[in-house]
Parts: sequence; structure tokens; C-alpha cells
Amino acid sequence: MTTAGRAVVLLSGGMDSATCLALARAGGHECHTLAIDYGQRHRAELAAAAALAAALGAASHRVVAIGIGTFGGSALTDVRVAVPEAPSPGIPVTYVPARNTVFLALALGLAEVLDADAIYAGMNAVDYSGYPDCRPEFAAAFQRLADLATRRAVEGRRIVLETPLMRLDKASIIRQGLALGVDYAATVSCYQATVDGAACGACDACRLRAAGFAAAGVDDPTRYAPRS
Amino acid sequence: MTTAGRAVVLLSGGMDSATCLALARAGGHECHTLAIDYGQRHRAELAAAAALAAALGAASHRVVAIGIGTFGGSALTDVRVAVPEAPSPGIPVTYVPARNTVFLALALGLAEVLDADAIYAGMNAVDYSGYPDCRPEFAAAFQRLADLATRRAVEGRRIVLETPLMRLDKASIIRQGLALGVDYAATVSCYQATVDGAACGACDACRLRAAGFAAAGVDDPTRYAPRS
Repeated sequence: MTTAGRAVVLLSGGMDSATCLALARAGGHECHTLAIDYGQRHRAELAAAAALAAALGAASHRVVAIGIGTFGGSALTDVRVAVPEAPSPGIPVTYVPARNTVFLALALGLAEVLDADAIYAGMNAVDYSGYPDCRPEFAAAFQRLADLATRRAVEGRRIVLETPLMRLDKASIIRQGLALGVDYAATVSCYQATVDGAACGACDACRLRAAGFAAAGVDDPTRYAPRS
Repeated sequence: MTTAGRAVVLLSGGMDSATCLALARAGGHECHTLAIDYGQRHRAELAAAAALAAALGAASHRVVAIGIGTFGGSALTDVRVAVPEAPSPGIPVTYVPARNTVFLALALGLAEVLDADAIYAGMNAVDYSGYPDCRPEFAAAFQRLADLATRRAVEGRRIVLETPLMRLDKASIIRQGLALGVDYAATVSCYQATVDGAACGACDACRLRAAGFAAAGVDDPTRYAPRS
């Protein structure tokens, strides 16, 4: 495979970032994946990320731990805040403050160290949970920041933020991923997955995922945990 | 004291961020300080940050650990890279990739959780080491990102990045800090400080600091380590 240069790929272990990695690989990039351990209660996604990195041919995989779980303020990091199991208006309590800003900043640092030309991130503004830091205008603002923030940029060599899923619906993401060999059974989306990655089937992430498989007309490979 | 609202203050333990905290306090803010443990070899600055937070009346102090030291690529986190002891052209090897982007992103997350109106950061583009992420245009780009990144921003309540030292020379910073009661003996600037905070006197940070005290016409309170 010819190489399109190095890329840092943010890999959460969910279906979007797995598809993003497959797209970056299909584009010829040497991919270095980065998972972030931010104290998320759905720890199974970190194990899924490592397995997906290997299965999809990443050149390296890193996990960076950051202590933002101690900030509190999100159902994803604070077990005292319940994960909602029904749709709610506005920005949900599963929003982690400034999460994508922090994750992209870390990816930018790694991209600079590895001399990578691109960052791939699976943000999506169609079938998403209404987080402010998943929108195209947020990604564009991050690009403008990145163009001023790094040694590479000062030297005239940009690090480009690629968000290939931004305007795709979930069904299109699934179809693209399946065409590229993504094994969605190995991905974890659920906000309250069990330690071995079984899904609740009720949270916002589970609902979006199940609707995506239905719309794509393919069998849903998700393992669901028995409900009590 | 009347309150100007809550502020998150990035506090490294150095003289600039200590002065920044004093200015935020003088402006009437309830200040919540944030130090970042990124694996820096000059660990003494973390102890200095905690002491300065208490001395300067911070309402709370937090240390967040992030694993970017494992990225390598900087003399500040990689003991295999020597800290330069003479001026060098261009961006020096003490540059930590995307450091201020990461630090400001973490401050933004904490500001959102605490419902703070402001982030104070001691970036300075006059007597500085030539890092790209210390420039006014970088700060402006971060503000534009912050205005799109958070739940607060979506709700119309901005978190404003304040960089009161940006255009001050080191002597002016020192004079302002002394007028506000900052004890510079308690600050650690040296990139290779000993575990108890004694300075090398030779690195870029030490040279800028010593020149600042000389230009301000005040005694330099820095404790210097004996040179072998």
C-alpha cells in the first residue's frame, strides 16, 4: 500500500472511531491510534480500542490517562449521575465537559511528536447526542487553533484535522465500515457497558446504534446484557 | 471583597502563573487553581503551585495528571534530551508539543464544571522562549474554539480566556506581582530544578527570570543550586 503519510487516529472503541480508522487506513495512512482513559465508567471500550487497533492494522496504539474524572459533572465519569435511558431535550448529562477539546489537543501533541500530517476523529453531527463539540464549526475552529499551536505549523507544515464521518448518518457509517471489513461486534458504544462489553440497549448511544443497523438493513451484532 | 465570579487559574508554580493568580484575585475573582502533572522533570514546581495557591487565597487547588510524558519529544519530559544551557535560535527543545492547547482544554473543562466565567493563563509573548502556543493569536484562536466547545457557550454564557501578562515584559510582571504580595522566592521557574526547588541558573527559564529581576531593579530571591 502506498502511504499518504502518518495519521493519529482517536480511537474510543466505539463504532464511529473504528470506522474512522478503517477509512484512514483505506486512504493509505500509517495510523497511530490514541485512546484516552478519562475515568469513563464504560471501561470495556478501552479494551475494545486496543483490539480494534490490532484488527484494523494500526502501526501503534497508545492509551493516555487523564484525571478529568475527578472534575465530575458528567454521567460518563460520575457514577452518582445516572445514565438516562430515555431521550431528553438539550445537551444530555452524558456530555463530558470539553472532552473533544481535550482529546483533540492530546492528538495534536502526539501528531507533532510523530511528525504526522493528519488527525482523524470520528465526530458526527447527524446521528449524535447533541454535544456542542461534535459540530462542524467546532472542528473548523480547532483547525484554526492547530494552525497556530504547533512547531510544525510555524514551519509551514499543517496538521490537518480529518472528520470523515461528520456529515454521514449512522446507516452510511455502518455500510462504509462493513465494506472496509470493520467487525462491529468488536466495538463498544454503550455508556454503561458491562466489564466484558455487553450493552444495556437503553442509553442514548445504544439507541442510536441499534437504529443505525436497522436503517442500514443489516443484522445488529451487538451483544446485549440481560436486563434485570 | 466583591466577587467578579469564578475563575479557573492555570498555576504551574512559576512566577508568571503566580502573578496571574494574584491579578485574578485582585480583580475580585473566586479562584480555582489547576496544576498539570504531565511528567515534567522539574517536579518541584508542582509543590510550589500548591503552596502558592494557599498563599494567594485560591478557593480550591487541583492537580490533574496526564500521561503525555510518554509521547516524548521534549527536554521537559524526556530525561534523554538535555536542557540547553545557552540560547539557541528557533523553537527550543524544551517546547512540549501542544502543551498550552492541552492545558487550556483541561481548564475549559474544569471551568464548565465549576460554572466559572473566566480562565486565567500566564502566557507571555515578550520575555518568553519562542513557543508557538504563547502568542496572542493562539490565545485568540483558543477563545474562538471555547465559544463553540461548551454547553455554557451554547447557552450564551461565554468562558473568557484572560491572559493579563501577554504583553508585559518580565520586569513589569515582577513589579505588578510584588505590589500584590507575590512571594517570588516560593516560585519555581527552572526547567531542571532540584527536588527542593533550587534553580540551575543556566537554562532559558532561569536566564529570563534573572534578567527580569535585574531589569526590575529588585533583589533576585531565587535559590540557586551549587554548580558542580
